[in-house]
Amino acid sequence: MSSQAATLDATDPLAAYRDAFDLPPGLIYLDGNSLGALPKAAKDAVSQTVEMEWGHDLIKSWNSHEWIKLPETVGEKIAPLLGAAAGQVICADSTSVNLFKLITAALQLRPGRIKIVSQVDNFPTDLYMAQGVVEWLGADRAQLVTASAEEMIDNIDGDTALVMLTHVNYRDGKVHDMARITQAAHEQGALMLWDLSHSAGSMPLALDVLGVDFAVGCGYKYLNGGPGAPAYVYVNRRLQDKVTQPLYGWMGHAEPFRFSSTYEPAEGVWRFVTGTPSVIAMQALSAALDMFSTIDLAQVRQKSETLTTWFIDCLADCPDLELISPIRPAERGSQVSFHHPQGYAIVQALAAAGVIGDYRDPDILRFGFSPLYTSYAEAERAARLLRDILNAQTYLEPVFQVRQTVT
Amino acid sequence: MSSQAATLDATDPLAAYRDAFDLPPGLIYLDGNSLGALPKAAKDAVSQTVEMEWGHDLIKSWNSHEWIKLPETVGEKIAPLLGAAAGQVICADSTSVNLFKLITAALQLRPGRIKIVSQVDNFPTDLYMAQGVVEWLGADRAQLVTASAEEMIDNIDGDTALVMLTHVNYRDGKVHDMARITQAAHEQGALMLWDLSHSAGSMPLALDVLGVDFAVGCGYKYLNGGPGAPAYVYVNRRLQDKVTQPLYGWMGHAEPFRFSSTYEPAEGVWRFVTGTPSVIAMQALSAALDMFSTIDLAQVRQKSETLTTWFIDCLADCPDLELISPIRPAERGSQVSFHHPQGYAIVQALAAAGVIGDYRDPDILRFGFSPLYTSYAEAERAARLLRDILNAQTYLEPVFQVRQTVT
Repeated sequence: MSSQAATLDATDPLAAYRDAFDLPPGLIYLDGNSLGALPKAAKDAVSQTVEMEWGHDLIKSWNSHEWIKLPETVGEKIAPLLGAAAGQVICADSTSVNLFKLITAALQLRPGRIKIVSQVDNFPTDLYMAQGVVEWLGADRAQLVTASAEEMIDNIDGDTALVMLTHVNYRDGKVHDMARITQAAHEQGALMLWDLSHSAGSMPLALDVLGVDFAVGCGYKYLNGGPGAPAYVYVNRRLQDKVTQPLYGWMGHAEPFRFSSTYEPAEGVWRFVTGTPSVIAMQALSAALDMFSTIDLAQVRQKSETLTTWFIDCLADCPDLELISPIRPAERGSQVSFHHPQGYAIVQALAAAGVIGDYRDPDILRFGFSPLYTSYAEAERAARLLRDILNAQTYLEPVFQVRQTVT
Repeated sequence: MSSQAATLDATDPLAAYRDAFDLPPGLIYLDGNSLGALPKAAKDAVSQTVEMEWGHDLIKSWNSHEWIKLPETVGEKIAPLLGAAAGQVICADSTSVNLFKLITAALQLRPGRIKIVSQVDNFPTDLYMAQGVVEWLGADRAQLVTASAEEMIDNIDGDTALVMLTHVNYRDGKVHDMARITQAAHEQGALMLWDLSHSAGSMPLALDVLGVDFAVGCGYKYLNGGPGAPAYVYVNRRLQDKVTQPLYGWMGHAEPFRFSSTYEPAEGVWRFVTGTPSVIAMQALSAALDMFSTIDLAQVRQKSETLTTWFIDCLADCPDLELISPIRPAERGSQVSFHHPQGYAIVQALAAAGVIGDYRDPDILRFGFSPLYTSYAEAERAARLLRDILNAQTYLEPVFQVRQTVT
């Protein structure tokens, strides 16, 4: 380890959080932007939920352990990470399903407007959900228009109901300018929906201040809620009582235990809840979120910028790696991506050497840096191993084929 | 315990399965039709999933532990419980969200027909989801028509796209005649959707033989998959490639890892999958389902009928309790419901005495009998305690207020 890495780690105000996670000894895990590591508190919460709440207290737990309130209690733990005051975030379903709710809600709030504008390189499931809405409602009621990041704003016009975009691009890690794009949408009378899956928990966000209308995100990346953790929905308070969404489930009913045969939407953001969520999954995420109550997100962002910069600097002497993430720290999320024609084989070779990165077609090496559990020494060691592999071209040897799959 | 109960228990071919569950000692749990008890195998599977798969193997588990296949592998474990050949059941989302997929699919398969016919006393969330579809598509494209159980069939006509019904009614436990109603729907060219939440796992089903088109159900009642366990979708093979559903999530894409910006539905029933499921919840359900591989559902149904009959017989001398479940065992699911004007207070008093039943507005006492872990001796003891409470009117005393909530 260099003295520089040692100094950076010694002065890292977040260093103590590493101990809050169960990570395999010796492994350098640079894929927390795909699946966050296991918080010890989540492990304990799952045991408690299964053995005591489900196993012992059984059906009573809906009340005695407040399972019934979980969409709200977990949502309220997420809210500060988004810069959202209370009463605007609920935890429910998957990001995909939540996108469907909000895309349809936007069309309802902007009658007469049919355009949904997004970026052609938006995360695929975001585009798919918009396509599903468009095909379901018909071209006379909804249309999806996609453009490059540069041209997207030019496509927002008086026929645009919704602009939807992922805040941090999953391939290159570029951070979109939330203030500017939100303002551009609003200037045309359109609503703005941000997918925060690749940013929440890794940087401060300011949905309320920027007047964002809608947001979604997943619980399993920087929030560390576990594989396939429930997702969340943000609906700005000013819109909540003006709109519903078509997935009229019992948990979003005004009086779910009246067992009325007619749907009546709950007050506020609860109407964006649909069916019964996995309680075990909710409790894991809930426990994972608790650590954020003592964390300063400005420090997280500061470390994220320094850590990714450090990793890039450690690879400055690798001419074959083409950095595709923005070189300016303020413009990238907590990830670093490179082009390399042998990207897939290199990620395999790195995994064999104890460094878990990620690969995305066609030739992208992607490294996520979770400031809560990744050290500067690890970033340096990962860079050195990557450099060694590139220099020795060991990635051309057959390696154990594990293809990382899920973003 | 009576000698009759002792004999019934001694000759119960399913008695050994009780030991597969973690149940609190001394508690008589008659609410498995709302939340199934904890299988020991599910507890172990959750620990394994959290500690080894998530904690240790991290992102690699999507492949090495086949997380990516879970919707299918869990679905295939459910299929035999439904009388479904392979390739027709996937596990995903909640029952509510799955209803939305299938209601919209039915309208797509029957262009020109707009009626969705159901029973006015169908489970509320089923009706709500249909109402959501109707309100979003507009009355010219979809309408919901509800009628009493008796009159429902008369409402099915040449304008009916879909008939949807819960197989076992959640209040009175009446089993609807799946063969007759499915045939009535088909005779009018309509599709048939069954909600099996209150029947799967407690009786044999025969979706393929009856030519049922669609089915949904939850994983947390007789399947014992844990609170809010993922739900499932059955789509008859003959329909799978003719239809999509509007929730175009990445997991239902033909090539999810190509990250194409255009949705293309996966082959077969996979196109009914949407976003990333909770892996922990899926693995709990998966482990819970394993016990069914050695279980004869005909024996389960036989015990269910005998057990509920035994409970009813033990209460024959309680004139104040009005049985609302069918008296003929073949006509009821694995539950027994009574009217009593003090139903809520009685269920509370029973809980204080160690018997967990359930209450439903306005005055229904509901007792579920899970044949895998409920004994005849327990049914007898529960009946005796209920009779004692009724005779002594102890339910009129203040009791600890725990209101059971979730069906």
